[in-house]
Amino acid sequence: MLSSITRPTLIINEQQCRANIRRMADKAIASNVIFRPHFKTHQSAIVAEWFRDFGVSKITVSSLEMAQQYAEEGWRDITIAFPANIRELKGYNELSSQITLNLLVDDPKVTFALSEGIKYQIGIFIEVDCGYGRSGIPYDNIKTIDEIIQILKESETLTFKGFLSHFGNTYQANGKQEIKDIYTEGIQRLKSLKFKYTADFPNIIISIGDTPSCCVVDDLSEADEIRPGNFVYFDLMQYHLGVCEIKDIAVSVACPVVGIYPERNEIVIYGGAVHFSKEYLEQDGKLFGLVVQFTEEGWSPPILDTRLISISQEHGVIRTTPEFNTKIKHGDLLGVLPVHSCLTANLLKGNNVRI
Amino acid sequence: MLSSITRPTLIINEQQCRANIRRMADKAIASNVIFRPHFKTHQSAIVAEWFRDFGVSKITVSSLEMAQQYAEEGWRDITIAFPANIRELKGYNELSSQITLNLLVDDPKVTFALSEGIKYQIGIFIEVDCGYGRSGIPYDNIKTIDEIIQILKESETLTFKGFLSHFGNTYQANGKQEIKDIYTEGIQRLKSLKFKYTADFPNIIISIGDTPSCCVVDDLSEADEIRPGNFVYFDLMQYHLGVCEIKDIAVSVACPVVGIYPERNEIVIYGGAVHFSKEYLEQDGKLFGLVVQFTEEGWSPPILDTRLISISQEHGVIRTTPEFNTKIKHGDLLGVLPVHSCLTANLLKGNNVRI
Repeated sequence: MLSSITRPTLIINEQQCRANIRRMADKAIASNVIFRPHFKTHQSAIVAEWFRDFGVSKITVSSLEMAQQYAEEGWRDITIAFPANIRELKGYNELSSQITLNLLVDDPKVTFALSEGIKYQIGIFIEVDCGYGRSGIPYDNIKTIDEIIQILKESETLTFKGFLSHFGNTYQANGKQEIKDIYTEGIQRLKSLKFKYTADFPNIIISIGDTPSCCVVDDLSEADEIRPGNFVYFDLMQYHLGVCEIKDIAVSVACPVVGIYPERNEIVIYGGAVHFSKEYLEQDGKLFGLVVQFTEEGWSPPILDTRLISISQEHGVIRTTPEFNTKIKHGDLLGVLPVHSCLTANLLKGNNVRI
Repeated sequence: MLSSITRPTLIINEQQCRANIRRMADKAIASNVIFRPHFKTHQSAIVAEWFRDFGVSKITVSSLEMAQQYAEEGWRDITIAFPANIRELKGYNELSSQITLNLLVDDPKVTFALSEGIKYQIGIFIEVDCGYGRSGIPYDNIKTIDEIIQILKESETLTFKGFLSHFGNTYQANGKQEIKDIYTEGIQRLKSLKFKYTADFPNIIISIGDTPSCCVVDDLSEADEIRPGNFVYFDLMQYHLGVCEIKDIAVSVACPVVGIYPERNEIVIYGGAVHFSKEYLEQDGKLFGLVVQFTEEGWSPPILDTRLISISQEHGVIRTTPEFNTKIKHGDLLGVLPVHSCLTANLLKGNNVRI
């Protein structure tokens, strides 16, 4: 299968992917929470089907376009985990006439615009900022939350579903304990809100999302719903956070070798920013990926002292050892474990192979 | 036209684009060099047509796929400015049966594989590394150049066209003088090679490429061919290098406002890493883009003290002033001048509007 590859191609290890899904699905069952995985990571109809095998029927996406695409592929219960965009009312109406659609709001004016413009039943989560500082209402801004809930109470089409948060600051955490601390603080803030409004809304859902929390916290039962996405593939960012092992990473990018430079122990691959994006880690200098070799069963552990140190639009530069350099020939395929699998999979969505 | 935009959309200012093309085309004529622009920046059939209006018929691309696409759109003379990839022999053969195709080599074994596998006439440039350190034969490695030229002499299908280099280190330069110095050193190294082989090959072409050199050097007549690409749009990277003015930037990304956070003077836009890539500049912290407002004629100069400070997959966070923050409403469109227009245009190639 790999022998026919001519250009950078996402290699998906089905067995590892399924193991990653199973582990999270089992944890969701054990914690008695709804498992609504984020499908922005893979954006693949085939990988989506693997989730069905574990009983998943509710999903999360990050754009209307993605929701439309999955709806076409038969998914009937979708949350767009992105602030509702009042320029997309028409699309929300089209989609909500066909499927169960949930949107996020963090502003009374937007909520009011939805209540005026939405024609079919839509579920509404109030997005809460528990400390990440991107989108969402600050958890202690009760006045704004009250205003939104008042609009929802009066709306004929919008149903208040609960409080949703993305603890994205776990991605900046320094180790597992800090991830757990961010989770604990965030979940307490959401539980206080749930408690406050539970008399009026006895079925409030607390929905949380990030892969680091969902992986390192053993018991997620304080939440009602989890929306992790990245865990299906994992990547070097998760590995360096301590969230997964290298062996858990379920994707690599197969890249043809197009240049060999023994005088500087470097190899140039066909594989650049239009395949990986430009995300990197600071790990003894910039790290854009680790290098593996393909085997009968999948791929090897990362090659020692060998890393993708820079990328331009189509070129990737690997620095390696004299030993490895002499083993490599032009036209060989090297695998690269990506820094951020979501962005890599997005760029390679038209070009992937399962093994 | 902008009123119908619902999601991040590349806005192409045709007048500015044409002005950028005209300036470079005029310089090429004045310098008496072949103008073979790099079309990886725009990847647009429509923008490609604007180049025809300035007499352009030879183009540069960075992948076989892109070459195939432009060939379908009627371009008949294409250089793939990327090291020849022996896994793509079949594609090279198909394409070279239809159009004039030039490839790059920097290795005798690859050259030999091409001489064995290529069935139609192909032009070959020897890629030379004049100091950038990515791909290419180091300029002083005459032994390897000789080996390649010997293979080319004996080949029935491969024709030696000349020496090609990308002075990519100009992107790391500290100001215009350093860009000029890199150019001068590089062009002297290429001229020495040309001189050395000119008895056997009287029509050797020196082909150089980067936008910084081609913009800041007034007289390019020491080269025979120029291949700049980015200049058609420019971007903040070129601006910060001193290569263009802000007003020369011919693209912005229209992004709907989806979050307003007066308590921290921040605005969240629909516009993230899947639209801009993750390239940033270090300019008083990370800079992912500058913010403009759309006007009747195009867009305003950048809003004072207002910048895109972080991006995740679909979200962009703008930090601004209290004054600007209070002016903005949910659903407004803000323009973002991108850090790297090539990567942004690649991500938005299915979604752009001309003004």
